[in-house]
This record gives sequence, structure tokens and C-alpha cells, in this order.
Amino acid sequence: MAELTHFNVEGRAKMVDVSEKAVTSRTAIASGKVYMLPETLKRIQEGKIAKGDVLAVAQVAGIMGAKRTSDVIPMCHPLLLTGVDISFTEYPEPDQNGLCAVEITATVKVGGQTGVEMEALTAVSIAALTIYDMCKAIDKGMILGEICLEKKTGGKSGTYIREQVTGSR
Amino acid sequence: MAELTHFNVEGRAKMVDVSEKAVTSRTAIASGKVYMLPETLKRIQEGKIAKGDVLAVAQVAGIMGAKRTSDVIPMCHPLLLTGVDISFTEYPEPDQNGLCAVEITATVKVGGQTGVEMEALTAVSIAALTIYDMCKAIDKGMILGEICLEKKTGGKSGTYIREQVTGSR
Amino acid sequence: MAELTHFNVEGRAKMVDVSEKAVTSRTAIASGKVYMLPETLKRIQEGKIAKGDVLAVAQVAGIMGAKRTSDVIPMCHPLLLTGVDISFTEYPEPDQNGLCAVEITATVKVGGQTGVEMEALTAVSIAALTIYDMCKAIDKGMILGEICLEKKTGGKSGTYIREQVTGSR
Amino acid sequence: MAELTHFNVEGRAKMVDVSEKAVTSRTAIASGKVYMLPETLKRIQEGKIAKGDVLAVAQVAGIMGAKRTSDVIPMCHPLLLTGVDISFTEYPEPDQNGLCAVEITATVKVGGQTGVEMEALTAVSIAALTIYDMCKAIDKGMILGEICLEKKTGGKSGTYIREQVTGSR
Amino acid sequence: MAELTHFNVEGRAKMVDVSEKAVTSRTAIASGKVYMLPETLKRIQEGKIAKGDVLAVAQVAGIMGAKRTSDVIPMCHPLLLTGVDISFTEYPEPDQNGLCAVEITATVKVGGQTGVEMEALTAVSIAALTIYDMCKAIDKGMILGEICLEKKTGGKSGTYIREQVTGSR
Amino acid sequence: MAELTHFNVEGRAKMVDVSEKAVTSRTAIASGKVYMLPETLKRIQEGKIAKGDVLAVAQVAGIMGAKRTSDVIPMCHPLLLTGVDISFTEYPEPDQNGLCAVEITATVKVGGQTGVEMEALTAVSIAALTIYDMCKAIDKGMILGEICLEKKTGGKSGTYIREQVTGSR
Repeated sequence: MAELTHFNVEGRAKMVDVSEKAVTSRTAIASGKVYMLPETLKRIQEGKIAKGDVLAVAQVAGIMGAKRTSDVIPMCHPLLLTGVDISFTEYPEPDQNGLCAVEITATVKVGGQTGVEMEALTAVSIAALTIYDMCKAIDKGMILGEICLEKKTGGKSGTYIREQVTGSR
Repeated sequence: MAELTHFNVEGRAKMVDVSEKAVTSRTAIASGKVYMLPETLKRIQEGKIAKGDVLAVAQVAGIMGAKRTSDVIPMCHPLLLTGVDISFTEYPEPDQNGLCAVEITATVKVGGQTGVEMEALTAVSIAALTIYDMCKAIDKGMILGEICLEKKTGGKSGTYIREQVTGSR
Repeated sequence: MAELTHFNVEGRAKMVDVSEKAVTSRTAIASGKVYMLPETLKRIQEGKIAKGDVLAVAQVAGIMGAKRTSDVIPMCHPLLLTGVDISFTEYPEPDQNGLCAVEITATVKVGGQTGVEMEALTAVSIAALTIYDMCKAIDKGMILGEICLEKKTGGKSGTYIREQVTGSR
Repeated sequence: MAELTHFNVEGRAKMVDVSEKAVTSRTAIASGKVYMLPETLKRIQEGKIAKGDVLAVAQVAGIMGAKRTSDVIPMCHPLLLTGVDISFTEYPEPDQNGLCAVEITATVKVGGQTGVEMEALTAVSIAALTIYDMCKAIDKGMILGEICLEKKTGGKSGTYIREQVTGSR
Repeated sequence: MAELTHFNVEGRAKMVDVSEKAVTSRTAIASGKVYMLPETLKRIQEGKIAKGDVLAVAQVAGIMGAKRTSDVIPMCHPLLLTGVDISFTEYPEPDQNGLCAVEITATVKVGGQTGVEMEALTAVSIAALTIYDMCKAIDKGMILGEICLEKKTGGKSGTYIREQVTGSR
Repeated sequence: MAELTHFNVEGRAKMVDVSEKAVTSRTAIASGKVYMLPETLKRIQEGKIAKGDVLAVAQVAGIMGAKRTSDVIPMCHPLLLTGVDISFTEYPEPDQNGLCAVEITATVKVGGQTGVEMEALTAVSIAALTIYDMCKAIDKGMILGEICLEKKTGGKSGTYIREQVTGSR
């Protein structure tokens, strides 16, 4: 197993030195879910048909959040993101806990010396928090879950694709 | 069921008008988990004994993240947080997926016209993302999950306490 | 005519001392226009019917911009905004220059020791810049204009209402 | 007429993917005006001779604002600006509305995959808002207007130069 | 001697809970020096007479820096600053190391539950760094020094006034 | 002696145009000290053995501060930092004023068109301010001093190494 790389010789945190790494094209895709009452999902879906679109606000928040990643995650390198896209999938069928879900998927691209996994994960997290914020007046029990990296390409460590997990989390 | 409050008469998003609300003491507690390989948790625990402390960095990130909430969540009101604390619980026993976990709990206080649920949830999310960032060199499959509001007090809607869910998510 | 208040005894800029001012309820309304080709306005209007909604993004940007006012305007006091709303009016009839327009109106509220004129004007400006950004691929000649304070209430200087100007700017 | 490029296949906003674009030298020049009472312009001019220099503060604000563009305009790409300059022209002759003006011109440079039009326009807007802020104690009726792109060079779409408009706006 | 207050029961950093503290009027004054070659000070002084005013830029930076304090100092509480002023004193007589100096003094006011010592110290530090930045092309050996709290008033711990130190640092 | 470069033809501040400069590997090392009572240093040292680690928080703050440099220093160019490290040296022997010290050293790397001197100095300053913040409950008399550039490499002006100064400051 590789070493944790974020610590210096004194054992304290550092921003890892990537100055010798090549600039390569990199992408990362992350996803996550917001679990909610069926009624809450229904409200979100109605809003899309009318103009009160929770997901439109979450999308803007997620894209702006991706750009703020190196501001809020201490050891992240600043990067010139060349593309950010976010999409949503609705799960209207209640699960074993009686909860529906909105799944958020973020795709981030960069040409740089380090990857954009954190940017994709941050975009998903901020979009999910925004959904919570806009619906919390009607459903304080919403849960953000299964936020994870789906895929990354580029860089020295190459391509990573998440294994499908059969059991639900 | 109450109305979604974040939309104006044109059906577009707005920052809800709280100017007529009373200033009251409010608290919110949120929690969430980072699932990881047993080996990853072991590294984090070893780091605490030595000086390479992932959780110390995550704690600083979470506290600073709480202060950035209204910067990154579009419809959140700015608030003068009067206290933020974060604690960690380790789950060294692998679950049914073979994963251990670190649980993050954030407590946020304010005297204000609106609550600090979003600040607590944002603190947990940023701390969780920081743990991911610092361990991703050895475990890209980590999952952020079960991020939810545990409790809130104060304000017109009063106290909310999360019901215990028996099934795992 | 009153003195410019933003300068100290050495003649240099300062953030004006408002510590002796009373906390009062204050509002400000500002407006501004983005002039554009008729075809550009048509695209924006079509987007509203479909989902590609330029104005939804501009609205989120304007609200977030209001919250960033004291970050970007050097001598502005930080304030706890209690409400921000933005609305749009379309002017589909070309003016004497053959240009249509979208008018942006921002309303900001606060309880504080200083007013929110700058927050309302900043919200309008950022929303207008966002419209430009999202349509510039098809119309680089758009013009932001007539950004001004419509009304303010509260504070020692009381209510201000803009006089109607008969001539167009 | 070209398509609006800021929307994804679901019709929602995205940060346009520029990862395949070449890195080229790019510049943009934008301008705008702050209309004000003759007395207000006189005060600004007096301040320049003494030390209370409104325009010096506006210049710093505009330059810092250019650097914040991708923070406040949702779909803007982050860019490594290589130069920002701002200049002012005074119009002491009252126009048909009896108003004088200060014109702000911002020039921004970058080597990058996308242009700096938004950075130049944001610099002008923030500088104009700062002039308003510093003079609002004596002239709340100031108007920000004619904020537009004067010229851009570089990139696939090449050079754009604004046509002179004979009528005043 | 009092306890360090910034640590929680687990021994980790927290933002101290000030929710039970009274809101009182508070001020803090901090100062610091930038030591430089006599020629560098001469250039700064010449600039003041002409328009190239290093200190005007440093002043804007210091005031804006005060407002960013809780963004950059991890455990600082956000505060609604009600006034920030900065002044400069020049020391044209070379010291024993042959260096002249510019002294920066920042005064910050607030009505709040915690003091503004950090805001005053941050204002001085950012202003000093700005002077360094603007003169580093001619004098890389400049030193920032003697940055300290001169005085604070208000709050439970009352007034603090720095003792005069006879020896130079 | 070279010219001050941060002023335009009107004598106002600008962000220097570096668009013609080559991209080269650059490093900068800066250092600074926080002087404190012997008892304060003892508390910091005890905290390191337990978990209440002032220096761990200061390190995170310094690294994040380096990334915020172009946000807070008006004329600084944004840069894609490729590495930031911070180390601490304790001086437990009281000096002639009876004060001990913690020395902070920051090393910053970049591949860019301009250097990272300001990023290294800002990292040191923010780390020093954080130490002050976390210990001010027990020692308001702490002094930040001797903040200076130790070394830089890369760029047209080449390598700079600070001359050792024999006298103490």
C-alpha cells in the first residue's frame, strides 16, 4: 500500500509538490445522492415544470463549488478547470426506508499537473447541500449519501473506474 | 405540508426574507461518515499517534467551511457564528461491505434570525471531503455518506431531533 | 453639499465609522438594463420555455453577488443581509438603436447600522454581467446600462426615491 | 446565428468545455461610465489634487475585481491573468441631462484557452460601483452606464472591435 | 496563567463558543513596520507627491484584509466591522542597520461578542505585505517587523495597552 | 536602481504585464518569527505532545493563506502553486527582552510567469497571525517580526539569497 503523501518530514500536512509532474488532460466523474421523502421529490419535480427549479440552483451552486475547491479543501492545488458539467437523475421509487432520491453526477476536466477528483466530489457535495437548503422547510430528514468517485482518467496513476457494489449503502 | 419557501412570485429563487424574524439563540448538530478500507483507517489512526494527523486538518477545514457556508450555498443567509466544534468517532469494525468508517459530528451556534443547519452540514461535508483528499492516494474508493441533521434548537420551528433509523443506509 | 465621508484626516480612504449609528431596518432597490439584439432576447425567452434558462443563472449570480459586496467593494461594511430578491422585465420592442433589453431589479433588506444600496447595485451588476457571459457567443455588442438606485428606506438619511427621468439614457 | 453554448444536453447551465482549445494570447478592453452631478465630479477632481483620491480606490477595486471574475460569474473559467490596467477619462461638460461623467477603461491580458472579456467587463463594473460607493453620500442619483466590450483579440473567434455608435445611450 | 481556549475536550481546535458573551463596543489598534533601504523610502515618498502612491494601495489592501480576517485565520469569529482606519508614519532616519521604515497603524471597531485584535493585526500585515509587493522590484531585502497589538478596549477582559519597550526589536 | 513597476502611464497602480515573460520553475522561501513569553512557548510545546496543537492549525492556515495571496494582495498575479510546505523552529532560550520565539519557514513552488515571493511571505504572515490568535488569551504581547524573503530561484532576475544580518532586529 502506498504512503500517505500529504505529510512533510516533520509529520505535518503539506501541499504535495507536483512541480515535476507532466501537464496532462485529466477528467473526473463523481456522484452522490440526496435521499428525501416522496412528497419532497414530487415538489422538486413540479418545480421543474413550473419555474421554481431547485435543481437549476443546485447546478449553479455545484459548478461554482467546483471552482472553490482549492479555497475550501486545505491541501488541494489550484487548477484551471476547463469544463464542469452536472446532471441529475431522479429515483421516484421509494427504497426500503421509504425514501426517494435525486442523484447528482459531476464531470470535471482540466489540463494540469494534478487531478480533479476533489473538484468533482466538491461539486456533487455543494449541489447536494443546496438541494437540502432549498427543501429543508418541508423535509429536515433528508440524507446526503453515497458521494464517491465514479471514474478518473489521466495522470501518472491512469484510469480509475469504481467497481459496482451490489449491496446498497 | 409546508410550501417551498425559496421561490419568489415569478417562481424564481430568492433569499428568503427573514427580516421580521426574532433574533434567537440557535444550535444545529449534523453528522456524516467517510467509509474506507480498514487499512486506510489504520493509517489515519497511526497518524494521530505520530504527528501526521489527517483529522486535525479535516477539523480546521470543517470549521473554516462552516464560515464559508453563505459563500457557497446560494440562498443561505450570512450569519455571525458564535461557536463551531467538530468531533470524530472511529468505527474500526468492518461493516457488511468490509469498510470501516470515521464519523464526523459538527456543532454550530449562532444568535440570529435564521438557523445554522446548513453551516453544520457544510462543516461535516468539507471535513469529509478533506479526509478523502488526504487519503485518496491510498484509497480512491472511499464513500461519503449518511450526512444528515441530527438536531436543531431555537427559532420559530423549535427543536428538531432526528429519529433513529434502525436499518443502515 | 455634504462632505465625502470616505477619507480620513490624512486624506486617505477609510471604512467610515458607523459604530454610533442605530441599528434600523433598511431596504434598497436598484435596477439596470442589458441591451441586446432582438435575436438575443428571443433566445433568452425561448430558453425560459425550455430549460436553458439564462435568467435563472443570472438570478443565482445576483443573489450570491449581493452577499459578496463587502468582499469586492473596498470601503463597504459587512452586513447580515436578511433578504435578497431579483426580478426581470423584458423589453421586446427595439429602441432607437434597434436594441431590445432585459431589465433587472434587485431588492435587498437588512437590519443594520448602514444601508444596502451597494448590495442592491452589486446584485444588479453581477446579474447583468452573467447575462452578458451566457449570451456573448452570439452577441458581443450587448451593453450594460442605467444601473442606478431606485429607492432606499431606513437609516438617518431616510427615504430616497429616484426622480423619473424623462429622457432615455 | 451561433448557438448559446452554456447549456448541456439536459438544457441546464454548464461551464463550457474548452479543454480542446489552444492556449493563445488574448486581450480584452472594456469601458463604462459613471454619470454624476457636476459638483460630484468636481469633488473627485479636487481629491486627486489633494490625497483623497476616489479613483485610486476604484482602480485597486477594479483590478482585484478582475481577479474575482470566475468567483462571481457562475460559468466563467478560472484564468491566470497576466496583466490588468485601468484608466479614467473625465467628461466635465454636462450632457443633455445635466450630468458629467467619469469613463473607466480596463485592459486585461491572458495566455489561455478562453478569453478575458468578462474579466475586463467585471473590472469596469467593480470600479464603477466603487466610485458610486465613495460618492453616494453626496449624490445618490449617479448612474452606471454604457458598460460594454470595446475590443478583444486572440482565440478562435479572432478580433472584435466595437462599432462606433453615433447616438448617445 | 489562563488556559489556551481554542481546544475542545478531545484536544482538537475549535472556534471558541462566545454565544453567552454580551455584545459590547470594542476597538483594537495594532501596528507594524516595513524596514527598507533609504532609496526605497525615497521612492515611496516621491510617489506620494506624484500619483504613484504605494501607500494608497496598501491602505485599500489593509482595509479589505481586515474584512477577510475570519476567512483566513481559522478559529476567528466572523464580525460586522463598523469602522477600519489605517495610517502611516515614515521613519526617514536610517537605524543601526542602515534601514528606514514605514510604520502602519490600524484601528478597527466593532459591536460584537468578541474582539477585533486579529482584524487590526491582519490589516497591518496585509498592508505591510502590499508595500513589500509594490517595492520588491527594487528592494527584495525589506523586512516586516514589530507587528503587535497596541491597545484594545471593550469585552470582559477590558482594556489592554502595550507597555513601551525601551530596546528596539 | 530599477523603477517601481506597479504604476501605469497615469501614475496609478496596475497589475504588471507579464504576458511576454517565459514560464519557468520558480521557488521562494520566506521566514518570520513570533516572539512570546516563555510560558506561552511552553504551552505550545505541551500541546504538541498532547493533541492541542497550535502549530498544526497554523500550518493549515499558512498553506491556505498562500493560495489566497492574489485575493488579498492587490497587484499580485494569480498563480497555480505546485507545492507549499511550512516548518517551525522553536527558540526556547529567552532573548534580551526575555522573549522566546517560534520561527516559521514557508517554501512555495510554481511553474509560472512570475515569482512566488509574495505567496511565501503571505504563508508566513498568516501562520504567524494564527499562532497569535490561538495564544492571545494568555499572551497579548506577542510580536510578529523579521518576516522576510530568505531565497528565491527562477525567473529573469535569477536567484536571490538573503545576506546574513549579524545584528538582531
